[in-house]
Amino acid sequence: MKCRPSTKFRLVFPTESVGWSPDTRALRILDQRELPAREVVRDLVALPDIIEAIRTLAVRGAPAIGVAAAIGLAVAIATDSEGDGGRARGLLPLYGARLIEARPTAVNLAWAVHRLLTHAALVADVELVEALRVEAEVIRQEDVRMCAAIGRHGLALVPDGARVLTHCNAGALATAGIGTALAPIYTAHAAGRLVTVYADETRPLRQGARLTAWELARAGINVTVLPDGAAASLIAQRQVDLVIVGADRITANGDVANKVGTYGVALAARAHGVPFYVAAPWSTIDPATATGADIVIEHRSTDELGDLPPGVPAWNPAFDVTPRALVSGYLTDRGLVSPPFV
Amino acid sequence: MKCRPSTKFRLVFPTESVGWSPDTRALRILDQRELPAREVVRDLVALPDIIEAIRTLAVRGAPAIGVAAAIGLAVAIATDSEGDGGRARGLLPLYGARLIEARPTAVNLAWAVHRLLTHAALVADVELVEALRVEAEVIRQEDVRMCAAIGRHGLALVPDGARVLTHCNAGALATAGIGTALAPIYTAHAAGRLVTVYADETRPLRQGARLTAWELARAGINVTVLPDGAAASLIAQRQVDLVIVGADRITANGDVANKVGTYGVALAARAHGVPFYVAAPWSTIDPATATGADIVIEHRSTDELGDLPPGVPAWNPAFDVTPRALVSGYLTDRGLVSPPFV
Repeated sequence: MKCRPSTKFRLVFPTESVGWSPDTRALRILDQRELPAREVVRDLVALPDIIEAIRTLAVRGAPAIGVAAAIGLAVAIATDSEGDGGRARGLLPLYGARLIEARPTAVNLAWAVHRLLTHAALVADVELVEALRVEAEVIRQEDVRMCAAIGRHGLALVPDGARVLTHCNAGALATAGIGTALAPIYTAHAAGRLVTVYADETRPLRQGARLTAWELARAGINVTVLPDGAAASLIAQRQVDLVIVGADRITANGDVANKVGTYGVALAARAHGVPFYVAAPWSTIDPATATGADIVIEHRSTDELGDLPPGVPAWNPAFDVTPRALVSGYLTDRGLVSPPFV
Repeated sequence: MKCRPSTKFRLVFPTESVGWSPDTRALRILDQRELPAREVVRDLVALPDIIEAIRTLAVRGAPAIGVAAAIGLAVAIATDSEGDGGRARGLLPLYGARLIEARPTAVNLAWAVHRLLTHAALVADVELVEALRVEAEVIRQEDVRMCAAIGRHGLALVPDGARVLTHCNAGALATAGIGTALAPIYTAHAAGRLVTVYADETRPLRQGARLTAWELARAGINVTVLPDGAAASLIAQRQVDLVIVGADRITANGDVANKVGTYGVALAARAHGVPFYVAAPWSTIDPATATGADIVIEHRSTDELGDLPPGVPAWNPAFDVTPRALVSGYLTDRGLVSPPFV
């Protein structure tokens, strides 16, 4: 694993969280475990290193994990097969299965691996190594375009002077492009509009304070962090024009699973007549799940809450469910869409 | 300043956060800066040590600060005057003024100091040192009785098996007695009822995770900590029977200023038909302030939010305002009361 100081690496606008090393022989990631204290770029080739990066959240965010898995699988196979198509075909199912185990609940990870496996079945051995690299790059480019499309469709929601509240990180760091919830903000900023972003800290892992604030400040966009509990009073004081959050899953009826804390923000927005938008790739919509009540919520470790008195447990769900009735609009790469999604 | 390990000190039920040393020559506090990692009891006599303890939140919570100021002033005067009433009278206004400066916005601190100064004016020099000590003890006992009365009046709200959500710490650690918001819980527990408490972490200073969880666990009461952002989904999942929070100020119309995050909890409780009670001493009601809009909210340092990207500011209000319409009842030492308060 190579590790270079960020000063030697020119990140593209606004932040490239996952992609290729310049010689395209490695998966290059910006290590999100180190943010905001340090910008550490890692070039990964060995499968165990790639798995560890995904497992320990060095790369995170559903779209970014999918891209990392695709590029990671392609580079690991290319290196370990030494370019031999037959050996590559032998390694592929094993490497794919090990990658998927890194985060079993990450839908995009399995999706990206299966897409490479499906593609592999269509090509001859002699083309295989290069075909995997090309398909991984296609997946990356699709993600970049998906983000750009969300930004374009969301531009009208973010007029000059807009004050936007967001929760968690659904930004460039969570995708290969300009993010989902933050895509309209980057697009408005690029269009010369002044945008002010309020970023909920997002306990317990502080993705808002560590990641959203970092990537927006780096792009020259005004950003202020607030404790999650302060969001309701910020909204009550009429300091928020609209809320944009991401989504982990959107059900057929329009209920939204997203980072815990989203539902409380939606209630406060509704109480004060502030529009509440959910921005996500079209692929986040899951017509097979009828309502939010059908979503199994992942509960995470007590350790994430930091020091607690001995023996005191924590209730630490990763997500909550915001009901359709509180959502003003669903912003996707296909435009603003409305439930039911069938 | 003496410092003893807690194993040598038997804390009374549930926790004595502020009181006298056994020889009554010192102010004894449980150092809340050290919780929950360590139980450190400090006996303080010198005025600079007492001021530092108040300033750095070793003792916190409006009622506890008032009691600490009263006992602290009495012991510092007794020691530095060497029992000479004339010298004591000379020191009193100076020491009182320096104490008040320790936390200028703490209303109870100034109130306790002024009460000792007023009392001093009524007694002869020869009685002065002892009179200050007696008046400080009266203030402490009044606080203990105030808490007990809130607990008694609130007992009916907490039936066997009740699941109560609270925010911040309005418990024994914030008073000389069994707290305000937690008083009905301690009283129900003492009556043999099984009570489960959910304690919001309460960012940025984590009083729920550090203090409320500590004192309840220590008293043998079931307590679970949750991130502030998870409170709305806990309520949505029907895991909360009622909410009880404290108050820093209650205005004439019934609006409530309390630790930031309270308002969001109140909105979630209302959305799901869960009763939301405010528990506070009668003295917290401020008929001179018409509504919550008239309350000036203290904003605190960005530093409290921990690591942020360089140059990123925080919006960090200490309090928020919950409107009267969201409050199911006001639980005071005089019973359940209703606005307007005139």
